[in-house]
Amino acid sequence: MVFLTSKSSPRARRLRGFQAERDLVKLLWRLGFAVIRAPASGSKIKRAVYPDVVAIHKGKVLVFEVKRRSELSTIYIPKEQVEKLKIFSERAGGDAFIAIKVPGRDWIFIELRDIEELNDKFRISKEVLNKGLTIHDLIKRMNISLGLDKYLRK
Amino acid sequence: MVFLTSKSSPRARRLRGFQAERDLVKLLWRLGFAVIRAPASGSKIKRAVYPDVVAIHKGKVLVFEVKRRSELSTIYIPKEQVEKLKIFSERAGGDAFIAIKVPGRDWIFIELRDIEELNDKFRISKEVLNKGLTIHDLIKRMNISLGLDKYLRK
Repeated sequence: MVFLTSKSSPRARRLRGFQAERDLVKLLWRLGFAVIRAPASGSKIKRAVYPDVVAIHKGKVLVFEVKRRSELSTIYIPKEQVEKLKIFSERAGGDAFIAIKVPGRDWIFIELRDIEELNDKFRISKEVLNKGLTIHDLIKRMNISLGLDKYLRK
Repeated sequence: MVFLTSKSSPRARRLRGFQAERDLVKLLWRLGFAVIRAPASGSKIKRAVYPDVVAIHKGKVLVFEVKRRSELSTIYIPKEQVEKLKIFSERAGGDAFIAIKVPGRDWIFIELRDIEELNDKFRISKEVLNKGLTIHDLIKRMNISLGLDKYLRK
């Protein structure tokens, strides 16, 4: 069976993007967070400053832009998506991450300060991706602990 | 001109409900909150535990179920909507409110502890509605202050 993921239709790609967002919501919910996903973009509210997913635990706020890729290679992100993340997380008093899902691999989380600013977009190199945080690192980093570890496959 | 709001179609009512949610998002955003609206219900994700609107300011979290009514009279709320609000706000470490919009009036916010539990649903009586919080009260109550007052029509 051959998956032509990189040549699939925009609609198929968008659906897989939504699925990745829903998977992240489920994962974070199971870990004890209150989690909310933004309304689908592409509609009227596209211009609103929404991240893809927001997770909150006792006042600690994590904000995510979700990227689903068919393989682990350099990721480019439009400038305005990163700006939105920054504005939202500053207002919320939270921390912002790019959450990357490659099928067959665990989630990778990249902090905003580790993404590279180019002229007209941002870049996450493969090296940075390889040093990204796991969900386990993320929880530790945020100093969130209430026996969540038992839910985490190490 | 006569508005037959109580006899309007379910679709028209739903659209006005969305509009109310969007208006609340705008109001809270202008006040300095990071605000996110949940995806429209009625789709697959309906069973997810989402409030209608979540507003965050420097780690303080407000969670809202939004009700749009054509007039100010007793409001009944399905039990599961209130349960969702409770679960979400407990996980988030925030405060939950029913936000009520009646055309031509300012928003009214009712704290969960002020709603009355019946056998199979919750009730907000007209008396409670009349003693509800304004957006101004809400900001004060939350101890959120960073010169937001200037944005508030008193």
